[in-house]
Amino acid sequence: MNSLDELLTYTKYQITENMNQYIPSYDRIHEAMHYAMKAGGKKIRPALLYAILDIYGSDKNSAHIAALSLEMIHTYSLVHDDLPAMDDDDLRRGKNTVHIEFDEATAILAGDGLLNHAVTLLTSMNYDSEIVLDVIRVISEAASIEGMILGQSKDIQDEVDTIESLNQLHALKTGRLLSAPVEVGVILSDAKQDLEQWRTIAYNIGLMFQIKDDYLDVYGKEEEIGKRVGSDASLNKTTYITLIGQEETNLLLQSKYDETVNLLKELNHLDTSLIEQIMKYVIERKK
Amino acid sequence: MNSLDELLTYTKYQITENMNQYIPSYDRIHEAMHYAMKAGGKKIRPALLYAILDIYGSDKNSAHIAALSLEMIHTYSLVHDDLPAMDDDDLRRGKNTVHIEFDEATAILAGDGLLNHAVTLLTSMNYDSEIVLDVIRVISEAASIEGMILGQSKDIQDEVDTIESLNQLHALKTGRLLSAPVEVGVILSDAKQDLEQWRTIAYNIGLMFQIKDDYLDVYGKEEEIGKRVGSDASLNKTTYITLIGQEETNLLLQSKYDETVNLLKELNHLDTSLIEQIMKYVIERKK
Repeated sequence: MNSLDELLTYTKYQITENMNQYIPSYDRIHEAMHYAMKAGGKKIRPALLYAILDIYGSDKNSAHIAALSLEMIHTYSLVHDDLPAMDDDDLRRGKNTVHIEFDEATAILAGDGLLNHAVTLLTSMNYDSEIVLDVIRVISEAASIEGMILGQSKDIQDEVDTIESLNQLHALKTGRLLSAPVEVGVILSDAKQDLEQWRTIAYNIGLMFQIKDDYLDVYGKEEEIGKRVGSDASLNKTTYITLIGQEETNLLLQSKYDETVNLLKELNHLDTSLIEQIMKYVIERKK
Repeated sequence: MNSLDELLTYTKYQITENMNQYIPSYDRIHEAMHYAMKAGGKKIRPALLYAILDIYGSDKNSAHIAALSLEMIHTYSLVHDDLPAMDDDDLRRGKNTVHIEFDEATAILAGDGLLNHAVTLLTSMNYDSEIVLDVIRVISEAASIEGMILGQSKDIQDEVDTIESLNQLHALKTGRLLSAPVEVGVILSDAKQDLEQWRTIAYNIGLMFQIKDDYLDVYGKEEEIGKRVGSDASLNKTTYITLIGQEETNLLLQSKYDETVNLLKELNHLDTSLIEQIMKYVIERKK
């Protein structure tokens, strides 16, 4: 793949195709799952997986289920995060959230369904059992009670008041599941020697992603970002903006970017320009 | 094992021990998970797994993680079922439900955490990768959007008005996850030739279990069953009692029992008395 556009178009197409193939649609619960998955979004997690496979010249067709599962687990976390008892958001990606479009009970079950079905699908991946088990372990641990769910729990407990604790919160809540596709791509490419370097890079991408999200929640335009501007403030959440202000936040973003470009350069046996383009996209996006 | 008492005592001990070993406890989310798991309950799913392993003379020590995971997935479904947007129950197994004892957001995340952590734990089971993958597939499909979660979805849509549709609802909502431990036990015992017969037996046990639950919801004593009597009626749920009345429900229970005893007898190379005792317990229990 030569460009980010090509990667994102390919990813969007594959997720839509495979969603229709692998998620049934004969019950209301399935409809709600499709609705949540169709609500747009950047699909950055499956895109990261496809990018890594592309960089190593690995087969992408056998990895569609892994790509879909990553997007499903991310989507389940959003559906539950949006619930009235959690962030109470009525708008997500420019559309009604699931509990508004359907109802709260259906949203709870649709989230459960996305998480569970992601695992069921992963068990049918067409690789050696050991590799499949490795992939399930990486994804499941990323989303786990010592990963993403722990991050969600810390988020609702609201004990964050320093840059360090905010970084740690995001590393758990967002970073782990952004790192997972990179790790899965490396596993499926049989390139474990590069795993540690990729983990650090993926962690930084996750952090940049979250810093930019905080930024957009204050300075973005509602019609562009597709969710309510100021929702963090209305929940009294600690963000990079509340902690260090607009200017410092921008500087932090730029320094993380420079640092990560240098980390990419150390993988000098690979053409990593696709990842660099993803990073540029992450920090320059308007939504 | 010689008696049901011995089986249930062993199961309870193992679940408690392994829960403390395999579920961390340094965050509020973990506390809520432990709370939900500790709330008592019959632990019939892990007991069924241990019973099958015992019947085939298979090693039980390697199966503790599978037993624990089954109980965790069952518990997650109860935590979410009890939420205000679902059945809105404040009492479960004689104690406050999780959203009452903690809060709604924590209950949502604790349910997610139990489901996710069950899978994470399963990936670390000490068997060949192929067998581990088989076990994850069986458990995950049982809990799936074409299994338990589909049953929960049908339950909230409330379109049940015949015995057939009520049987189907329970087969999905309860039957599949009661069948899973039996299947897992057969897989771990390398006895796939008996699998179909055991599936039918497990399905019947699930049905008896649910018929008895409906019965106790009307005729049980609150101090014995540990949850509100009449909660089905207050939700206008269709039950065996509302469809065919008390006397016919008892007859149905007895005929299912007799039918299943005959199915057990066909497995004449095995001593299945432990399963027969479980069945007797299921239909005679007061809670």
